[in-house]
Amino acid sequence: MSLLVVGSVAFDSVKSSFGESGRILGGAATYFALAASYFTQVRVIAVVGDDFTDKEEQVLVRRGVDTSGIVHEKGKSFFWAGEYGENVNEAKTLDTQLGVFGNFDPQIPEKFKDTKYLFLANIDPVLQVNVRKQLPTAKFVGGDTMNYWINGHRENLNHMLKEIDALLINDAEAKMIAGDPSLARSAQKVLAMGPRALVIKHGEYGATVFFRDGAFGIGHHPFRAPTLPIEKVTDPTGAGDSFAGGFMGYIASQDKLTREVFKRAMFYGGVMGSFAVEAFGTERLQNLSRKEIDERYAAFRELTHLE
Amino acid sequence: MSLLVVGSVAFDSVKSSFGESGRILGGAATYFALAASYFTQVRVIAVVGDDFTDKEEQVLVRRGVDTSGIVHEKGKSFFWAGEYGENVNEAKTLDTQLGVFGNFDPQIPEKFKDTKYLFLANIDPVLQVNVRKQLPTAKFVGGDTMNYWINGHRENLNHMLKEIDALLINDAEAKMIAGDPSLARSAQKVLAMGPRALVIKHGEYGATVFFRDGAFGIGHHPFRAPTLPIEKVTDPTGAGDSFAGGFMGYIASQDKLTREVFKRAMFYGGVMGSFAVEAFGTERLQNLSRKEIDERYAAFRELTHLE
Repeated sequence: MSLLVVGSVAFDSVKSSFGESGRILGGAATYFALAASYFTQVRVIAVVGDDFTDKEEQVLVRRGVDTSGIVHEKGKSFFWAGEYGENVNEAKTLDTQLGVFGNFDPQIPEKFKDTKYLFLANIDPVLQVNVRKQLPTAKFVGGDTMNYWINGHRENLNHMLKEIDALLINDAEAKMIAGDPSLARSAQKVLAMGPRALVIKHGEYGATVFFRDGAFGIGHHPFRAPTLPIEKVTDPTGAGDSFAGGFMGYIASQDKLTREVFKRAMFYGGVMGSFAVEAFGTERLQNLSRKEIDERYAAFRELTHLE
Repeated sequence: MSLLVVGSVAFDSVKSSFGESGRILGGAATYFALAASYFTQVRVIAVVGDDFTDKEEQVLVRRGVDTSGIVHEKGKSFFWAGEYGENVNEAKTLDTQLGVFGNFDPQIPEKFKDTKYLFLANIDPVLQVNVRKQLPTAKFVGGDTMNYWINGHRENLNHMLKEIDALLINDAEAKMIAGDPSLARSAQKVLAMGPRALVIKHGEYGATVFFRDGAFGIGHHPFRAPTLPIEKVTDPTGAGDSFAGGFMGYIASQDKLTREVFKRAMFYGGVMGSFAVEAFGTERLQNLSRKEIDERYAAFRELTHLE
């Protein structure tokens, strides 16, 4: 089934201990769409400037992504420059230029109104709610957010949390929303604020999904998927968005939302995140084979599988 | 088979957000012995002062632990006072008094010389090597260490690493020994220094075992065991030692060291660590039932089990 992502399509410039990327294609919706494209048909809604040319668009088109929802405006695309030090879990932002993204007002075109799976990447929660309301027949809605909205736009964020089925955030964000240093308690507090499922991404330790009691009819026990220890993390940018793409993409590809589907989605999320960090930008996500994905999935399973 | 632990038997005083413990029984060897006692016969070598009375000894004796290797000396037992703030992964040390532990010179009595499984808890690596050499027929030797020895006694530590089969440390210690910010690379570097297996404990994220190529004839793929997200971490003291006790205890209880045995040992380690933190000191480890342990083991398995 079709999966729609609304978020940033942008340019990045990344420095890490493995070198410098130069100006490359980036953005949450880009990572998400590429990762999800290995599982289902993906549609993108975003805004870009004059610097986004056919060359960039073809990166998505080659993966079968429907780019007709990308609005072209006069000006520059969103740009982010960052640097990763010894701790690859923390990026130092060197430059941010919103460009045309500053006036992003996503509208779902008529032809996308049949979309059943929706992912609201990290944008203003007011826009996230607007988009969600334009798609009342969506079956499953996932969303992301970040510290900027948690700290400065709390009422809007609280509203957004009531409009989504699954929130995908990291440890620090979960604790920040809950105002609690305990991850386990934070999970329960965030679930009480709206989403039926909460996926907390632990970086190199994997990710855990927590459920509200009886959510989706699949009980309330949490489930954790690992990631393989990676020696060469070239560029951690987009790992979380790639996780979300693998996760939502796999769910959208399945007829029913069972506990097993959720579990496998968590593993596929980890798999796509682990590929994303192996090269600068979206390079690794552009040319994967299904065989590579299946082999890593099997390796992840073996990593924690007890007879 | 008998499992011998050499390390501290001590008193602790712990403050956490759940209250204050008062002066209670602690020490790495104590936590280890209690956790391991649910799987195999345990022997302890330690030194204590006059303050260690029959009341404390009975805590171990009631769990079937052989305490005849605990040497009583004139003076005070090792004492540690600490406080856990909002971040339960970091203790603030308020007081340390070495007492008779300052002259600890562990000797293995003749009757313990048939021991096949040995755990060298966190003590001076010179003493760890001395003990290991007194037990040349040991089948499997595990060891622990800490930042103090890593930074200040490097040559002795390097020697110790060549004398053990499995090193059990946490993320920060692994990176410190390797001098590398990447956990995956650090694991390979530490393995190259001696141990055939390296168990890295990730706190609330579980633990991963890395193997040297072909170690124990069970390949080189790592294996990760999770821990359940715990909402009420009353006292994290001894969690790592309890992990080690469950891990080594289970291995000592099995005839052969297969990959499946190693995997289950990792899970049992996580199980015992998770019980330890639920109450102050060793309280929770004193009165567990095999049923409680098996139920939590099943819950841990379900947490990551993919069909």
